[in-house]
Amino acid sequence: MNLENASHEQLRQWEAQLSADYEAIVARKLSLDLTRGKPSAEQLSLADALDGILKGNYKSADGTDTRNYGGGDGLPEARALGAAILGTSQAETLAQGNSSLTLMFQCLLNAVQFGFNGPDSAWGKQGKMTFICPVPGYDRHFTLCEQLGIDMVTVPMGTDGPDMDRVEALIQQDPSIRGIWCVPKYSNPTGVIYSDAVVSRIAQLGKLAQPGFKIFWDNAYAVHDLGEPQPLANIMDACKAAGTEDTILQFASTSKITHAGAGIAFVAMSEQNLKSFRAFLGAQSIGPDKVNQLRHMRLIANADQLATHMQAHAAILQPRFDAVLTALDSAFTGSDLGQWETPAGGYFVSFDTRPGCAKAVVKLAADAGVKLTPAGATFPYGKDPQDANIRIAPSVPSVAEVVGAMEVFVTCVKLASVRQKLAS
Amino acid sequence: MNLENASHEQLRQWEAQLSADYEAIVARKLSLDLTRGKPSAEQLSLADALDGILKGNYKSADGTDTRNYGGGDGLPEARALGAAILGTSQAETLAQGNSSLTLMFQCLLNAVQFGFNGPDSAWGKQGKMTFICPVPGYDRHFTLCEQLGIDMVTVPMGTDGPDMDRVEALIQQDPSIRGIWCVPKYSNPTGVIYSDAVVSRIAQLGKLAQPGFKIFWDNAYAVHDLGEPQPLANIMDACKAAGTEDTILQFASTSKITHAGAGIAFVAMSEQNLKSFRAFLGAQSIGPDKVNQLRHMRLIANADQLATHMQAHAAILQPRFDAVLTALDSAFTGSDLGQWETPAGGYFVSFDTRPGCAKAVVKLAADAGVKLTPAGATFPYGKDPQDANIRIAPSVPSVAEVVGAMEVFVTCVKLASVRQKLAS
Repeated sequence: MNLENASHEQLRQWEAQLSADYEAIVARKLSLDLTRGKPSAEQLSLADALDGILKGNYKSADGTDTRNYGGGDGLPEARALGAAILGTSQAETLAQGNSSLTLMFQCLLNAVQFGFNGPDSAWGKQGKMTFICPVPGYDRHFTLCEQLGIDMVTVPMGTDGPDMDRVEALIQQDPSIRGIWCVPKYSNPTGVIYSDAVVSRIAQLGKLAQPGFKIFWDNAYAVHDLGEPQPLANIMDACKAAGTEDTILQFASTSKITHAGAGIAFVAMSEQNLKSFRAFLGAQSIGPDKVNQLRHMRLIANADQLATHMQAHAAILQPRFDAVLTALDSAFTGSDLGQWETPAGGYFVSFDTRPGCAKAVVKLAADAGVKLTPAGATFPYGKDPQDANIRIAPSVPSVAEVVGAMEVFVTCVKLASVRQKLAS
Repeated sequence: MNLENASHEQLRQWEAQLSADYEAIVARKLSLDLTRGKPSAEQLSLADALDGILKGNYKSADGTDTRNYGGGDGLPEARALGAAILGTSQAETLAQGNSSLTLMFQCLLNAVQFGFNGPDSAWGKQGKMTFICPVPGYDRHFTLCEQLGIDMVTVPMGTDGPDMDRVEALIQQDPSIRGIWCVPKYSNPTGVIYSDAVVSRIAQLGKLAQPGFKIFWDNAYAVHDLGEPQPLANIMDACKAAGTEDTILQFASTSKITHAGAGIAFVAMSEQNLKSFRAFLGAQSIGPDKVNQLRHMRLIANADQLATHMQAHAAILQPRFDAVLTALDSAFTGSDLGQWETPAGGYFVSFDTRPGCAKAVVKLAADAGVKLTPAGATFPYGKDPQDANIRIAPSVPSVAEVVGAMEVFVTCVKLASVRQKLAS
């Protein structure tokens, strides 16, 4: 189907046929949901051995009684696992509570309010604050910026990461730029992996930026490969080589490894940044839940066990991604109705409709019983200027449900596109 | 022993004898610790059934799969337990992560930075901020104030709570007063319970104070009775009767009920305050660890089971408190060497030396192998203007160790007091 070269009559025929198809779908009264980037019950069950795994032994490897207060950095063995995920050293890595989002908020707050390099370095004392947001991106990152009064400027995501020419130009032109959001592997939602060249250029940003510039490196899908583990260049190494290691703050968690919301979150940063962040955390916390960290270590003791565990996740996720991608391929390859990436991991497939169609697609799908993430959610302030991006999250429904939902999705994209073309 | 009426010669004899006693103690090379207000291993073991208690059933009472994201308020049954502890309704009470201190920080931050009643109500926009701190008090409360740039003014603790005449006068005289810290039951460290009259006057403070005034009601020892449960007047009810329910923020946790650092923390507040606090939390969190909340509910399903559990704690703690109080009674009753309360619960005994002796006592004890909380720690900025207060925490050592440590303590108090009197 190619709309640009179609006659008006052809468009009208398509519209009639697609409307009939759509009404037939509506009559089926479906109730399907492609909105949630969370693990399915089947995936969660992979970690059900966590409960009871301690068998009365609450002592960590170094003999610490995990049941009591203290140990603000987290258990050493949990820090080592976080370091393995992030490609950092154990000394650079903290194991904390159940949410990497909370750690991102805490780092952002520390930067805005207290300063990673003393009170004078607090962004809040230096006027306007702006973050660079590659789009489409993760809505919760944008919400944190909004909450803390940080403006957002967007740059487009390409197939190898953010448009670095634009990123570098922005940093050089706008002295209010304080940081950038990055999801470097299986980026939320496009699923791309930052290339070595992009990682290298990101590591150099500290040389162009104002003092105190920070890269929020949310490596949420570091080990979430569907097939063969895909490499990502080591940002900490690159920053150290560039002398910019104080610009990089890295985040990860076990939320999509063990039990979402009941796992361990990790943060890694330079010695200088850790000094500040430990002081920030120390005043407000009696330390993370070490018992839960110990449970995790008994289930997943090292990188090898982690790899095996992630293969079990992949076996569950792969057919769902296949169902999405097969539907998109067979419906849209060679058409001018949309574009998408073919991710090798992560939790999403990102689809760009023709400009101005995304909201209409989401509405049509909702009316036909298929929930999609609201159009615009992947942009700051919920506003996609092209009204094109839709995030598809296939992890929770069954394979058959994904197949059914994609049938609806494809029909809605076609119908919305044809109607828009007719109206133009 | 009474120093005021003693002759110089008598004092010199005492000093010689006590110095000899002290040297004999030093020669024993003890290593004892009365610093830590944390549960002993024996107490922690009371909750060891937590691990494995789910037996594969991760569903909460309402059918929620606790393993996944979501549920920012906490599990309903956990909120009900928090409400039972705090004397609030479930709707007013949230069940969150492992630290009530973190909740206090978050509430304080929300008040300073964002405002419980909209951005204009943020304390940070209204100039100088001051908190009333009853002393002696809890050092971590004071640290939170320091971190957030809040000044502190002290009022003395009496046997029935803070000196309310002083509290009310301060609020009326000083428009920068934004709040007050309260540990209303078994106050840290004096162990007193606020009387009904004090609770009633605290509930009225909102009528005297500037808009946005907040009472941080840290009910850390609400159910931590050594003997018969002692009543505390219900502050939420009193505030509602006074029309000041937006002034009260209440905190509790299971840290000294189950596993310290691996439990559930609770916060309760009015509907208006909750609206603001939920928005604050929602941006930075994907919800608390519901799996751990479910474990707790399987171990302690209701207030009756909680009472039984706390009796087991009391059985372990009582002989340790007896050892402290017996030593103080036999050494100091009728003397002019110090004063103390006899707490019926909590974690501490607070001892006031003669003015100017506390640091000397702590130093002497340390040199004799008995660690005490640093003198001054119970005051803002670590400065006890009288240099008199010492916090004794007997929960961790064995009964025999407490007996041994108190023998040292008593000798150090006597020796420091006599030496000071001789030098004056």
